[in-house]
Amino acid sequence: MEYDCSFLTNLELDGEVSQGHSDLENHAGDFGTREADETEPDVVVFAESTADVAAVVKAANDHGVPVTPYAAGTGLEGNATPVDRGISLDTTRMDAVREIRPDDLQIDVEAGIIGDEVNEALERYGLFFPPLPSSGAISTIGGMIATDASGQRTVKYGEVADWILELEVVLADGSVIEAGSKAAKTSSGYNLKELLIGSEGTLGIITRATLELAGRPEQIKGGRAVFPTLNNATEAISDAITSGVDVAKIELIDDQTAMLANEYADVDLPKQPMVFVEFHANHGIAEEIDFCRTIFEGHDLDRMEIASGEEMERLWQVRKDITYAAEEHSPDLDIGPPGDVTVPISRYPEMIAEVVTVAKEYDFFIPCFGHAGDGNLHYFVLADYDNPEEAARAREAYAELIERAIELDGTATGEHGIGIGKQKFMEQEHGTAAIDAMRAIKRALDPKGTLNPGKIIPSEGSVEDGQ
Amino acid sequence: MEYDCSFLTNLELDGEVSQGHSDLENHAGDFGTREADETEPDVVVFAESTADVAAVVKAANDHGVPVTPYAAGTGLEGNATPVDRGISLDTTRMDAVREIRPDDLQIDVEAGIIGDEVNEALERYGLFFPPLPSSGAISTIGGMIATDASGQRTVKYGEVADWILELEVVLADGSVIEAGSKAAKTSSGYNLKELLIGSEGTLGIITRATLELAGRPEQIKGGRAVFPTLNNATEAISDAITSGVDVAKIELIDDQTAMLANEYADVDLPKQPMVFVEFHANHGIAEEIDFCRTIFEGHDLDRMEIASGEEMERLWQVRKDITYAAEEHSPDLDIGPPGDVTVPISRYPEMIAEVVTVAKEYDFFIPCFGHAGDGNLHYFVLADYDNPEEAARAREAYAELIERAIELDGTATGEHGIGIGKQKFMEQEHGTAAIDAMRAIKRALDPKGTLNPGKIIPSEGSVEDGQ
Repeated sequence: MEYDCSFLTNLELDGEVSQGHSDLENHAGDFGTREADETEPDVVVFAESTADVAAVVKAANDHGVPVTPYAAGTGLEGNATPVDRGISLDTTRMDAVREIRPDDLQIDVEAGIIGDEVNEALERYGLFFPPLPSSGAISTIGGMIATDASGQRTVKYGEVADWILELEVVLADGSVIEAGSKAAKTSSGYNLKELLIGSEGTLGIITRATLELAGRPEQIKGGRAVFPTLNNATEAISDAITSGVDVAKIELIDDQTAMLANEYADVDLPKQPMVFVEFHANHGIAEEIDFCRTIFEGHDLDRMEIASGEEMERLWQVRKDITYAAEEHSPDLDIGPPGDVTVPISRYPEMIAEVVTVAKEYDFFIPCFGHAGDGNLHYFVLADYDNPEEAARAREAYAELIERAIELDGTATGEHGIGIGKQKFMEQEHGTAAIDAMRAIKRALDPKGTLNPGKIIPSEGSVEDGQ
Repeated sequence: MEYDCSFLTNLELDGEVSQGHSDLENHAGDFGTREADETEPDVVVFAESTADVAAVVKAANDHGVPVTPYAAGTGLEGNATPVDRGISLDTTRMDAVREIRPDDLQIDVEAGIIGDEVNEALERYGLFFPPLPSSGAISTIGGMIATDASGQRTVKYGEVADWILELEVVLADGSVIEAGSKAAKTSSGYNLKELLIGSEGTLGIITRATLELAGRPEQIKGGRAVFPTLNNATEAISDAITSGVDVAKIELIDDQTAMLANEYADVDLPKQPMVFVEFHANHGIAEEIDFCRTIFEGHDLDRMEIASGEEMERLWQVRKDITYAAEEHSPDLDIGPPGDVTVPISRYPEMIAEVVTVAKEYDFFIPCFGHAGDGNLHYFVLADYDNPEEAARAREAYAELIERAIELDGTATGEHGIGIGKQKFMEQEHGTAAIDAMRAIKRALDPKGTLNPGKIIPSEGSVEDGQ
């Protein structure tokens, strides 16, 4: 439905209200939505301040108009796209560094700041924000917090959530709260901060964050290891993690993905499973690398190359190119929705075997890769998604892998969030009583359903079809 | 009011229902309550299973009878003591290790298990549960989770909360949910697990937990450093933390506390501020200790003694004895409610200076000590709490320090929780809108107010007096 948003003209905003065609179009989708499924908002508000966000949310709540917060649009599950028009509230102009407190290892930033810009601001202090995901160059801190993001360095440093001390959040009635504390730890009151993290703007809109920081490691080295079989590779990873090897990144690609990425990069690498590693330390990095190598050798390691600086980047290039390589593999095929399952590390080999089985069964090319140290596996079902029959079969293969991950005590999503795309797996993963509790919380904090309606929680009494 | 709990006899419980005098008396207080303020429950249920907890909670909710979960009774803020009689639900008989999965670095335990018993069960696997607080020998895992506990090793390993993967929880209507995931990370749905952590049984009763584990460090060394002034000591700590020294524990005691503890232990130590440290590593521990020593020397370090094994324990003894030393300092004086403020590390020297000022101003002996690496400070206002005028003045001094901590961007409680005792500081720390949000969540998940009523959230429209 179309909403009358003329009340916005009565608000005194620092920011801008737009109904320009390209603004509406740009706020209809994200990296994961298909154009045919997109819904444009009625209006886009480019907020410039917390006061703007509070005023818009309050007025929209009073007028019964949905507000869908939007940041860089790099989500993969429609997390920030409107399902019911209304207002798209864009926070990307709220991108200032408010304060850096190096003695507290803290930085205060506005939610719309791009991840890498945080690290640039911190460079001269020798500090960094450790859990930044690979999308740090293009996605915002607010977006990362709202989707409970993580990434390659999570195996050492934890998730983005683990480095958030305090959030300023606008609630559905327009009130502004601070959740959490600038103290390193607190046991005071309910963990509103943790509840808001990963709530995808359905319970409140994050406007500011205090992030915890760490000193930049003095030594960084990394590279890749090649194994004869996928089993060798996954067992080597599992063994390294449980033996306590202090890796900062440990990534796996299977032989299919290796082939695809080698083609794309035009390099002469074997079509074999590869494990990419990176080590961070202030001293003793050589000992740690030796420790890792010894464990890998116990799993029939073919060869392991380690370097630093540009040479390390070169060794990693194949891993970095995967998505592009998959997208460009065939002009007739699309990558479809990206799998993001996570299982306990001991089930990782089983999960990967399942990908091989499902690929054979459905006769699709399903390259897989991921943050193996956390048990997080990404995959693409390459298919012609414009062919309805083939698309349906591809989505079935995609879903079967998620269902299998949940059966293996895992989760439908390790780092992308639920959005629209993964609602249909909520029931299997959480059960009815837990979803009812989530729904009760949503109703308690947003009784009129103003904030990002249609996300995370499946509609009551209906089986959501998702993607 | 007294509640009719006869409906309990109709339930088929694995556990036991008791109205024995000593059981009622034992469940009226905790380590922090004063006998005069205690309220006995009408009945104690010793649950033996999740089914027991679910049945009791469901029936109590149907009959409008409050249920206050109780574990080892080691809380300090009345977190688990009844304010309105009803049922005390004791979980200490649910103390089994359900499963250990060493390859996943995971253990499933029932909520009533004592902390140290978890580590005993893990010994033969070379694993341990790193964030266990000092009370691990006497308090339960469920109690630690419910109060969002942490401790000396938090500076390296984080809080108990950071090592909880999944919780089984009984909600107010008796339904049983699993919150979180056995996967190392998940972005699926609202963070119910994190909301339940620290909710002190007011939103649900924890019956089982899956804990994440780590390998036991191969090298452990520690000891103490003596500084000429408190300023030197606090600045040395702050410098060590921000420089990235990898300490597993870093504890401070001021000169007053040193005197007190030396008296108690009958040792010949200087009446000077002391910093206790412990290091954990798999290799390179000597380098890390040297790094720390160099930083300490920049702050006029008098001397630093480091050892391992029993000799390390001996060096730490004075720190371990503090509470006993304070309790036995004078037969006429009591320690009163324990301060548990936490401030950003750069404000730690200021916070300690404030303790000195308030002690002078009110003319009380206020020894202070704490987990300095996290900015967490404990203190006791030694006073005759049986003398109403003196008790009131002592509580004023105690409260003034908490208010000051919050002004310094800190929190009223770093690890003990709110319970009854710290409700009066909630408003200053969180503000009205955040407390309203907490209240809305409580109503949503426990509409009849069955679970642990009277805790955490101050009553509406009233200024709670607390301790």
